[in-house]
Amino acid sequence: MDGIQGTTVRAEYGDAAIAADVAGAHVISQAFPHTYGQPLAHFLSKTAKANVPDATIITEHPVVRVGIVFSGRQSPGGHNVIWGLYDAIKAHSSNSKLIGFLGGTDGLFAQKTMEITEEALSSYKNQGGYDMLGRTRDQIRTTEQVKAAMATCQALKLDALVIIGGVTSNTDAAQLAETFAELKCPTKVVGVPVTLNGDLRNQFVETTLGFDTICKVNSQLISNVCTDALSAEKYYYFIRLMGRKASHVALECALQSHPNMVILGEEVSMSKLTIFDITKQICDAVQARAEKDKYHGVVLIPEGLVESIPELYALLQEIHGLHNKGVSIENISSSLSPWASALFEFLPPFIRKQLLLHPESDDSAQLSQIETEKLLAQLVETEMNKRLKEGTYKGKKFNAICHFFGYQARGALPSKFDCDYAYSMMTVKRWSRGPAASQIGKPAVPMASVDLKGKAYELLRQNSSSFLMEDIYRNPGPLQFEGPGADTKPISLCVEDQDYMGRIKQLQEYLEKVKSIVKPGCSQDVLKAAVSAMASVTEMLAIMSSPSFGGQATI
Amino acid sequence: MDGIQGTTVRAEYGDAAIAADVAGAHVISQAFPHTYGQPLAHFLSKTAKANVPDATIITEHPVVRVGIVFSGRQSPGGHNVIWGLYDAIKAHSSNSKLIGFLGGTDGLFAQKTMEITEEALSSYKNQGGYDMLGRTRDQIRTTEQVKAAMATCQALKLDALVIIGGVTSNTDAAQLAETFAELKCPTKVVGVPVTLNGDLRNQFVETTLGFDTICKVNSQLISNVCTDALSAEKYYYFIRLMGRKASHVALECALQSHPNMVILGEEVSMSKLTIFDITKQICDAVQARAEKDKYHGVVLIPEGLVESIPELYALLQEIHGLHNKGVSIENISSSLSPWASALFEFLPPFIRKQLLLHPESDDSAQLSQIETEKLLAQLVETEMNKRLKEGTYKGKKFNAICHFFGYQARGALPSKFDCDYAYSMMTVKRWSRGPAASQIGKPAVPMASVDLKGKAYELLRQNSSSFLMEDIYRNPGPLQFEGPGADTKPISLCVEDQDYMGRIKQLQEYLEKVKSIVKPGCSQDVLKAAVSAMASVTEMLAIMSSPSFGGQATI
Repeated sequence: MDGIQGTTVRAEYGDAAIAADVAGAHVISQAFPHTYGQPLAHFLSKTAKANVPDATIITEHPVVRVGIVFSGRQSPGGHNVIWGLYDAIKAHSSNSKLIGFLGGTDGLFAQKTMEITEEALSSYKNQGGYDMLGRTRDQIRTTEQVKAAMATCQALKLDALVIIGGVTSNTDAAQLAETFAELKCPTKVVGVPVTLNGDLRNQFVETTLGFDTICKVNSQLISNVCTDALSAEKYYYFIRLMGRKASHVALECALQSHPNMVILGEEVSMSKLTIFDITKQICDAVQARAEKDKYHGVVLIPEGLVESIPELYALLQEIHGLHNKGVSIENISSSLSPWASALFEFLPPFIRKQLLLHPESDDSAQLSQIETEKLLAQLVETEMNKRLKEGTYKGKKFNAICHFFGYQARGALPSKFDCDYAYSMMTVKRWSRGPAASQIGKPAVPMASVDLKGKAYELLRQNSSSFLMEDIYRNPGPLQFEGPGADTKPISLCVEDQDYMGRIKQLQEYLEKVKSIVKPGCSQDVLKAAVSAMASVTEMLAIMSSPSFGGQATI
Repeated sequence: MDGIQGTTVRAEYGDAAIAADVAGAHVISQAFPHTYGQPLAHFLSKTAKANVPDATIITEHPVVRVGIVFSGRQSPGGHNVIWGLYDAIKAHSSNSKLIGFLGGTDGLFAQKTMEITEEALSSYKNQGGYDMLGRTRDQIRTTEQVKAAMATCQALKLDALVIIGGVTSNTDAAQLAETFAELKCPTKVVGVPVTLNGDLRNQFVETTLGFDTICKVNSQLISNVCTDALSAEKYYYFIRLMGRKASHVALECALQSHPNMVILGEEVSMSKLTIFDITKQICDAVQARAEKDKYHGVVLIPEGLVESIPELYALLQEIHGLHNKGVSIENISSSLSPWASALFEFLPPFIRKQLLLHPESDDSAQLSQIETEKLLAQLVETEMNKRLKEGTYKGKKFNAICHFFGYQARGALPSKFDCDYAYSMMTVKRWSRGPAASQIGKPAVPMASVDLKGKAYELLRQNSSSFLMEDIYRNPGPLQFEGPGADTKPISLCVEDQDYMGRIKQLQEYLEKVKSIVKPGCSQDVLKAAVSAMASVTEMLAIMSSPSFGGQATI
């Protein structure tokens, strides 16, 4: 990945990428007739081994004009993507220009630009936030928006447009690339996966930029709260974490900090747990700890949990449907179905108000505004008081304190990992094309949920009972830029088997080696052994790849 | 202060300490007949200059038995006080014993102990929290409690009892020392000023342990939020900070992070600002920023603000009075005076509920539970909407997000400054005796408010208009243990003129020097010059020290 920093680049064009979701391939190829199925470009360093015979060596670097825009929520490391790109294009030709759009996609449409210079960059290197260029609206989706973006690219004679963002922005980038290709606009569209949620990952993108920082900053705070819990010995802390619909941040933070409990949205969805099931689970844990004379604890909750709980999700869907029909907020509660109305009335007033908020542009609830941690803390308190009254619980009174760790981590200085990753991150391959699509008719870059069959989740499960009962809290400490700890990576990244492209290369090397050994002239024995071995390998792979194979779907 | 770490200690006994509050000296001397007015011990390093002729060199170190207890809210660095004390007494004699009380003052009364050993210490060195020993109740105040503490000290044959805590705990320590002296209990009582609030400071204690860490952790988070505000450009963040009644934490964090506004309780008290005055101030600032097309901002609020606002304080006093009379929470609102009732009914329901909470043991409100930041955000929003409707404000809609930065900083790993300060902190002098008292009848260690005539506040005032309008946010970054930034000290400590004891020494050196120059045998000219110069110095000091002198009282 850092092959692009030199002045000589060796590019290898591999096989055409296919859709990860085989069933969706047809839809994707139809939706992206001009961009689907292009070969993957693999960039190699100058010094890469000579055994990649068909790599193209690119030595000519014409002067280029590149535009760059922040789209979507800020995530630590965004500024370093600009810095890395600036250094890369300037290394190739000092006449090349990098043009930043001010105020996000609005600036792109309105051609509000600033030229990126060494001087302009100087105070933003290794800094958090998106404030060098700013952001506003986060979409390039309507016909007008796409037209405006194209007009800008043409007016500024851009060779490439780099869009920095998450799942939604990268879906928009893919659509924009297709439209540009169709309309013969020569500007190449490049999406860069920058989102703290960690939900834009697949076989080509091991982790998103910002995820490491967010997890480190949050883990520090969670650990501080764990220490506090253990010192005061009288509070249960309910901590809600940012991260949108997927629970990657909560999972990583749990592996870092070892809190007593973490409730992952993916687990709740899979087991179809109701809010009452979850409350009961927590109450049972509180009670088990009380029996060991422990009256403190720390519970992590992902902000997306509310949409993972089936009945709350159904209620939200109904509310959003009414929003879309133009029903005003004041009238929504009286327009709900009897079932939804009963649930709504059961909930405490503060959460009712939050559930009624207008949905976001991707139709999800305003997750940062819905205090699921307070709802759970309140339900647990009510249930514990009931058990106390009934005599089924005999411990001390349950006390909860709630926290939302969101905005205080999002603007953090990026970790060393994210700084370096951002600087070297140049997804010149159109990675967003390959992987998958969702509904018929409107392919989108898929959001990656926590893999409940993955190693990170397995690690959590293996330790969950000792986390729950033994208070083996771990404090990774504050983000360090020097000394021990400065080079740590996310645990969930380290334990997962992520080097997909590396392994594809490794396989190709083995195949080349077999070819070079088994040439006309080799001994009959060697040939026989090779044929026999390859026959069984081929048979095994054919079986594993058949749709009826019931084993774990890897990747 | 680090003179105590060696095996030879040079102690100098200075003048008797006098009460800082001269008017209160009589009360204190009466309340502390056995301990008031003792000479200050000043510990010098082995290598201290030879020109302290009357220093006592202590070379004999009998075997000692010392007890140590955490009292009051946890603060980063507490564990290192134990470590430093352990190393110090073991360095003097390996047979000396350090005994920790488990579970705070409750453990002291019940003689629940653990011996501090190298092994027990190993996992707590440089760690946050108080979990090595834990804490529960925070007082040694009633006759029963004092008796129980004395029984423990006698049973365990303690030479000294070290109490680690804040203002309240150190007041208790002073009372306990007096009682022990009166009853001839040989155990010496030592108070160690450990509190994140920074409100236990005077001419002998420049800063309390934990204050640096809390300010660093909070400043990092505030700065992250500032970056976020500047990136998204659509939110005002209202951040409430821990720190009890005084606003030291808010002041230091403002100097570190440069948020747009900070409202100090001391300012509000002095100017007698009502909640409406403060709301108007913020609204005017929001409006001024909107005129420069800025729709984001960061406002810091100390948790003690609610008690600094005159009408809210009066309401709280009335509520607490009703609590003390035994009125139940449900009946308090209907028992309020008409004036208090009108204010109470005006407030939003969430804050009413919080104001009704039972007061703490020191009769202050449960500051950590009262969401003043939400109250202000809501009042500002209402006012901005009103101005928008009336046409006096023509900007975009005002949006607020609220945060409370409390528990997530309190349990933090201590900063390098606090680690070192804690380890070397041995206030063997009974510092808590000297400074001041408050009400007649019940002297207490005074809480230090932010000095509105001090240099730290002056620095803030000088910059407040550029902080407000220019978004010169500063990010000190996360706490570092190595590399640049690891050795920074609190700004408010650096700018304040704090080296009181150093200056006392300097003065003594000058006086000695004059004595050594002007001896019998010196020339008549030298003698005349000395007499004339000292006459005018003496006159000037006499005038400045007279009660009618109107200049700034410098310490």
